Amino acid sequence: MTASLVRPVRVLHVSPEAAASRPDVVATEEPMEVRINGEPFAVIMRTPGADRELAAGFLFAERVILSAADIVSIERDAESRNVMDVRIADARARDLAARGDARRRVVMNSSCGLCGRVTIESLRVEAPDVVADWNVSAAVIGGLAEALRGGQAVFKETGGLHAAGLFNRSGVLEVMAEDVGRHNAVDKVVGRMLLEERLPLGESILFVSGRTSYEIVQKAFLAGIPVVGAVSAPSSLAVELAEEAGITLLGFVRGSAFNVYSHAHRLAR
Amino acid sequence: MTASLVRPVRVLHVSPEAAASRPDVVATEEPMEVRINGEPFAVIMRTPGADRELAAGFLFAERVILSAADIVSIERDAESRNVMDVRIADARARDLAARGDARRRVVMNSSCGLCGRVTIESLRVEAPDVVADWNVSAAVIGGLAEALRGGQAVFKETGGLHAAGLFNRSGVLEVMAEDVGRHNAVDKVVGRMLLEERLPLGESILFVSGRTSYEIVQKAFLAGIPVVGAVSAPSSLAVELAEEAGITLLGFVRGSAFNVYSHAHRLAR
Repeated sequence: MTASLVRPVRVLHVSPEAAASRPDVVATEEPMEVRINGEPFAVIMRTPGADRELAAGFLFAERVILSAADIVSIERDAESRNVMDVRIADARARDLAARGDARRRVVMNSSCGLCGRVTIESLRVEAPDVVADWNVSAAVIGGLAEALRGGQAVFKETGGLHAAGLFNRSGVLEVMAEDVGRHNAVDKVVGRMLLEERLPLGESILFVSGRTSYEIVQKAFLAGIPVVGAVSAPSSLAVELAEEAGITLLGFVRGSAFNVYSHAHRLAR
Repeated sequence: MTASLVRPVRVLHVSPEAAASRPDVVATEEPMEVRINGEPFAVIMRTPGADRELAAGFLFAERVILSAADIVSIERDAESRNVMDVRIADARARDLAARGDARRRVVMNSSCGLCGRVTIESLRVEAPDVVADWNVSAAVIGGLAEALRGGQAVFKETGGLHAAGLFNRSGVLEVMAEDVGRHNAVDKVVGRMLLEERLPLGESILFVSGRTSYEIVQKAFLAGIPVVGAVSAPSSLAVELAEEAGITLLGFVRGSAFNVYSHAHRLAR
């Protein structure tokens, strides 16, 4: 599968000394269409790999499915490798129909939100607050970035892929995914746990390369993940949502130095 | 306006030596709702600022509007500062209605695309190939990142904002925008030029912080921009689209060393 994560290209490398054509690789990006019960639902630009998990995690984050029980099957389309056919349970399909066209749901996703506050309030209706009474040590946090990078073969090659990793309380990497889209990488790891019926993830730490936006914390919240960390900065809405939802949000995690933006009580002293 | 780009937070900074609470700032992220002729169309998570330009650039990239002439007005809603009311010309509204619900358009955006090739072909129907017979020197390219960073006050403060800059052929920065979303930053600069009726941008260079995905090159293509550069890596679909559309795509631009992924003929020797 790793082969499809990158694609060979020929580049002209220019430096003050010379300009030379040479082979290189870039991260693969391809559209994937998700169909629900035969109807096109959405197209996701993604890096191929873990497509079933991506479809499951994406539909979970969009609240099309609420648990693995809502999925009858997720299969690659017989005619196109970039189409995933999802069949959802009749009961869930009826609920969605009663709520309005499921397709509409993606556009209207946060349309209720005219300000950050309203957006957060409306999201909180979707899931209970995260509850987790365990602590995490600075030593465990200090090891996350290194462990994620260690599992990330392709980033080193291309510099072009985001990664998301799910760790247990002891800092052991349990699942990871790479994608040109950070949100896709998170959907892939959450989707995998969903398919294994291991949600909610109240004993897990989510760690992502790059930054944390509202969307990343939203996905963690819906999956019940109490600790979210990132190599770089969070946005204001990410901090607000984490504060409201009971999530410990970490940023600028570089070795054992980092910032805690919310719920610092989970940090073991 | 700069004040709204960042928001004060209190963080616990942890290092091997100590843990101390201190004031900090994070990049502002808030939802903005775009209404077309009174109807909710989309919600964009964005950093406040240049909201008119963002609405214009976003609707242009979504092909809801094709030029400034399709816009009657773009105004902030009287009741909510995070709602932009766009009125589009009757003729354009009729065209959209004939093509199906405009709202549907966002979801169906690339839904025709079952593989990268089909996605690119369907996009190319939307706009002519980029034609520009001028050259750009390595010296001009070498100055882009520095110039963009110089204009980017907030990144230094928070590390949390992407930037997009539009430069002329001589490397002079003409318009720039910052946003938590890189695609929003591009929509803001293209939207500004659209509102000034300066499209297509056949004499311009677009330069962005971070990576280039399909979406970034798509926006450049629709605006007619022949040279696109970035601090980091492009995706495979970004390279393919640039190749097809006649765009010179630059990556890993760091000082005067960089990679050229397509149409290297525009590079002056």
